[in-house]
Amino acid sequence: MKTEAALLVKTGEPLVIATIETPPLKPGQVLVEVAYSGACGTQLMEVAGDKGEDKWVPHCLGHEGTGTVIEIGSAVTKVKPGDQVVLSWIKGSGIEAGGAVYDWDGKPVNAGGVTTFQRHAVVSENRLTHLPDGLPMDVAVLLGCAAPTGMGSVYNVLNVKAGDSVVVFGTGGIGLNAVMAAAIAGASPVIGVDLKAARRDLARAFGATHVIDPNEGDVAQQIKAITPHGVDLAVEATGSPDVMKTAIGVTRMQGGKAVVIGNARHDAALTINPSVFNQGKSLLGTWGGDSVPDRDYARYGRLISGTRYPVRDLLSAPYSLEQVNEALDDLRAGRIGRPLIDMRKR
Amino acid sequence: MKTEAALLVKTGEPLVIATIETPPLKPGQVLVEVAYSGACGTQLMEVAGDKGEDKWVPHCLGHEGTGTVIEIGSAVTKVKPGDQVVLSWIKGSGIEAGGAVYDWDGKPVNAGGVTTFQRHAVVSENRLTHLPDGLPMDVAVLLGCAAPTGMGSVYNVLNVKAGDSVVVFGTGGIGLNAVMAAAIAGASPVIGVDLKAARRDLARAFGATHVIDPNEGDVAQQIKAITPHGVDLAVEATGSPDVMKTAIGVTRMQGGKAVVIGNARHDAALTINPSVFNQGKSLLGTWGGDSVPDRDYARYGRLISGTRYPVRDLLSAPYSLEQVNEALDDLRAGRIGRPLIDMRKR
Ligand SMILES: [Zn+2]
Ligand SMILES: [Zn+2]
Repeated sequence: MKTEAALLVKTGEPLVIATIETPPLKPGQVLVEVAYSGACGTQLMEVAGDKGEDKWVPHCLGHEGTGTVIEIGSAVTKVKPGDQVVLSWIKGSGIEAGGAVYDWDGKPVNAGGVTTFQRHAVVSENRLTHLPDGLPMDVAVLLGCAAPTGMGSVYNVLNVKAGDSVVVFGTGGIGLNAVMAAAIAGASPVIGVDLKAARRDLARAFGATHVIDPNEGDVAQQIKAITPHGVDLAVEATGSPDVMKTAIGVTRMQGGKAVVIGNARHDAALTINPSVFNQGKSLLGTWGGDSVPDRDYARYGRLISGTRYPVRDLLSAPYSLEQVNEALDDLRAGRIGRPLIDMRKR
Repeated sequence: MKTEAALLVKTGEPLVIATIETPPLKPGQVLVEVAYSGACGTQLMEVAGDKGEDKWVPHCLGHEGTGTVIEIGSAVTKVKPGDQVVLSWIKGSGIEAGGAVYDWDGKPVNAGGVTTFQRHAVVSENRLTHLPDGLPMDVAVLLGCAAPTGMGSVYNVLNVKAGDSVVVFGTGGIGLNAVMAAAIAGASPVIGVDLKAARRDLARAFGATHVIDPNEGDVAQQIKAITPHGVDLAVEATGSPDVMKTAIGVTRMQGGKAVVIGNARHDAALTINPSVFNQGKSLLGTWGGDSVPDRDYARYGRLISGTRYPVRDLLSAPYSLEQVNEALDDLRAGRIGRPLIDMRKR
């Protein structure tokens, strides 16, 4: 069928809205009518070429969304037509069917196992999870990326416990999910650090007990004034090596842990004094907050729908697919937390 | 009472054997007749001044040993005169009584909460653990440092599981304990990497299924030939930033973990591409293998005494206290694994 998609044709240039033809489904592939897509730093980096040379252009993009199953390829057993689903880059159960190749007026357009900046998408079965009961499709786009990464880093990677002190560097979409996750679990204090006042306000709204403005002086000193012996747990959600260094620095001796969930540039370099490891500090990485979609998404959905925090504020007002470049610009400039792209909006 | 001790009088110079006077016991302190002491890279770095300026000289040193309790200070409840104990730098239950100050012909000599390069030592209650039943006092010096750090890093920090692939960089005293711990737990393959042939032979004797000589070509390539998709777990026991970089590099995507237990120089710098964290790899630090003496030492003792591996080979032939500089030289040169200093030998 014909559908519209936002394509990356050349890195560094705006996405192009194109009418493309979906290919016949291969075994394990599912045709989804996308309802909403989110967007995050990964797409900003892809568009800017920050991940290095892009040999796949032109290609589809977006890796978090919600939608309804239209058609299933052979061997698909996890979903059936009519099912409402979360689309996520994190692999769950089901077939890994590989990417799709669409047709754009005779030219091939590449796509990974899941893409979401489009009205219809051919998705690999293992990137789909059933929509948790009672969760609206717009809010549920958080389950595709921000919630598993942000909440998962706090619950699965750092194993936060009530009373732990937590600092989150960068309180955009993923960082706010980390702040909220820590607050829900009884962490205290929960410190949010962000250069932008609007994001610091959001951090407070999502449970931060303290917020820090790096413009107001040395961040490590400001954190030390709150937790003199260092913080138990740190979440690095900016991707900046300097911030990573601060994050491991402010954790406590003998057990302090910092997890890096910010996307690092492909050519970034982090230089630290390895004595921090002898002090018993750890610098953790994670792939999607160590989240297992089939195990975790229903739980994250309950947390999102049941919390006292204003989760809808994690998302922007809806953009149309045609406004995708505007959405990415607003995200890059920090004017919004997490863009929400509504495929039915015209 | 008068006793003999090896003192660091000036960094960079040999230790001086001196007759010193033990001070009266403060609350929480215990006078121990030291039977055996071990030695490790920490003392080499202290003697060389690799930990930065040493403002405590002259001071006692050594942080792993065994002995018999002679006298207890007030408030001590954990041990009583006649008890056989392990002396360890890792804090357990009991009073943290601070360090002792000895008298050396009218000059003060500093000491931390535990020191062991001496025939009698004033030790803080919380650095003592009861000697596990049936473990000889010489082999038990391993419980003071090498076993908790090496075994603890594998069991407590990396949480090794049967079938995990493990590589250990540097198979000296601590590294061999890590190799043995991994092998006992059913890890496979267990790869030992060391520049010295004698240490590679020991690695094989302690359960390594493969050994690698860095002189025979790129270490990462040699490891890849054994585990094409990367190793699950890596132990860095050399303290070299270059080796740390290799260690995190060779672990697998999405969950690979490297733990640093080698002592880094105080001015060392580790530079890595932080993308490894986005790939889901982690670089872990630890304080004594996250070991809790009261919980873990009896268990490590059972493993050491019950294993089919030649644990006595982890230790050198005994040196006398007067031979302590020779012992440290042999350790530095890699001629021995772990020095054993027998306080009764003259
Ligand atoms: Zn994302
Ligand atoms: Zn030691």
